[in-house]
Amino acid sequence: MDISDWRDKIDDLDRRLVALLNQRATAAVEVGRLKRAACLPIYEPEREKQVVANIQQSSKGPLAPRDLAQIYERIIDVMRSIQKNEIVPDAGNAEGHETEIDSQFED
Amino acid sequence: MDISDWRDKIDDLDRRLVALLNQRATAAVEVGRLKRAACLPIYEPEREKQVVANIQQSSKGPLAPRDLAQIYERIIDVMRSIQKNEIVPDAGNAEGHETEIDSQFED
Repeated sequence: MDISDWRDKIDDLDRRLVALLNQRATAAVEVGRLKRAACLPIYEPEREKQVVANIQQSSKGPLAPRDLAQIYERIIDVMRSIQKNEIVPDAGNAEGHETEIDSQFED
Repeated sequence: MDISDWRDKIDDLDRRLVALLNQRATAAVEVGRLKRAACLPIYEPEREKQVVANIQQSSKGPLAPRDLAQIYERIIDVMRSIQKNEIVPDAGNAEGHETEIDSQFED
């Protein structure tokens, strides 16, 4: 395989990565909604640590556990941010406006 | 689906994400090797921009282009780092030791 072939492969992998990242975002938002509906604590640092431990255990390399932790640190940050900025029409407030949740959520 | 179901789904997505990230790392290292073998310039910022543009174009959401750029900024940083620290036994040097490449590479 030449450089162009490898780049085609990388582009294909990236399309699949993006599809999975979008599915993960949808799931993370759903978890946030269920937690709010059940009045459960949203931010659970232990779950965040478990997510990183899980991905490190499932990896067969060549990325090192540290590499994966670095990538997931950013993925989790972004997922928390989209939960944080989500508009929640059913949350209800005195003025009847949509409520923007500004506390921290994680999946 | 309850929270536990969504978390199982997230854990499954994470395993698939890790497998793809590892495949991407392998491909990025191969591109670095081919470039060195052909004495081609290693660092190509235009390719990096193209990678981000590609993933933004292929996305159907819900992640915004900005979210994806943030995640990929970290992925590209990590990929460059593993290329940078790669030991290259066939690079050759006066002492016959393995040579650690310390310039920046990208895929």
